Amino acid sequence: MKSDKTTLCYLERCNAQGVREYLMLHRIKKDHDINKDKWIGIGGHFEDMESPDECMLREAKEETGLQLTELKLRGIVTFICGETCEYMHLFTSNEWQGEMTDCNEGVLEWLPRDRVYDLNLWEGDKIFFRLLEMDYPCFLLKLRYSVDGVLESATLDGKIVMWDEKTRKIIWQ
Amino acid sequence: MKSDKTTLCYLERCNAQGVREYLMLHRIKKDHDINKDKWIGIGGHFEDMESPDECMLREAKEETGLQLTELKLRGIVTFICGETCEYMHLFTSNEWQGEMTDCNEGVLEWLPRDRVYDLNLWEGDKIFFRLLEMDYPCFLLKLRYSVDGVLESATLDGKIVMWDEKTRKIIWQ
Repeated sequence: MKSDKTTLCYLERCNAQGVREYLMLHRIKKDHDINKDKWIGIGGHFEDMESPDECMLREAKEETGLQLTELKLRGIVTFICGETCEYMHLFTSNEWQGEMTDCNEGVLEWLPRDRVYDLNLWEGDKIFFRLLEMDYPCFLLKLRYSVDGVLESATLDGKIVMWDEKTRKIIWQ
Repeated sequence: MKSDKTTLCYLERCNAQGVREYLMLHRIKKDHDINKDKWIGIGGHFEDMESPDECMLREAKEETGLQLTELKLRGIVTFICGETCEYMHLFTSNEWQGEMTDCNEGVLEWLPRDRVYDLNLWEGDKIFFRLLEMDYPCFLLKLRYSVDGVLESATLDGKIVMWDEKTRKIIWQ
């Protein structure tokens, strides 16, 4: 059985024009994929006895070929969907070594940070992208989805929040 | 089966003399307790679908009668002991409401922060107490114990560290 603990990381860089970018993974390679056609980051499930950072480093290496040399825990996202519950450890990284390889889970692409909101994302992901941009201190975000993938509620550090698609801002209730 | 995810919190206050104190729990009430006679904080295992902060608030209420109104995630401690693995979410809190009640897991006592190192603690706990005092950013600490409770290795944010009992400092290898 797969662990209920996962990792997700967004690699960040400045491109030649000084634009800040994320490394995004377009999940188009696997047929049976809960993230099919969505854009997410790299990461995966904890293996036995792994700490969050050990899992993250292993997954990054497997999916990108890169050895991360810096890693920052940005928050823990508790996903509820029907009867399932997943604890996702969200990281960013600004330093790595090696050459990027192809990923068998999807297509890797560098994209400007402010363009990610235009992509096919889980709605709750927009909340944490905004938190990352705001340099929000290590947060606890609980996201409850319906079984067909609609965000039903979001709680940030114990307070109910919503994503406003028009202004692309987080609204605290 | 109990969850492999737990919480632990140290409530902090300044006493009348301006000395900073932790609320410590002396585990002397239960016979079969892995923490028997040790001093730890308050907390416990995640229940189904709980986020880390929801678990922490519930456990704090159950064990102290207090409603925490502020909570800060300070780190995740991955404990390995033999074949078991536990992910402990470490919090501190500086604000709460209500009156403190007795705890059926042990005796609650306010103690000066610098006196905790004299108590009967797990060796690895001294490492994270020092990190709390240093106001170390949200950390990932992996502690490997032998089955008889001896700390065999400690890894802090991917780097091997040791506890030096003489100087009561963390040593980075």
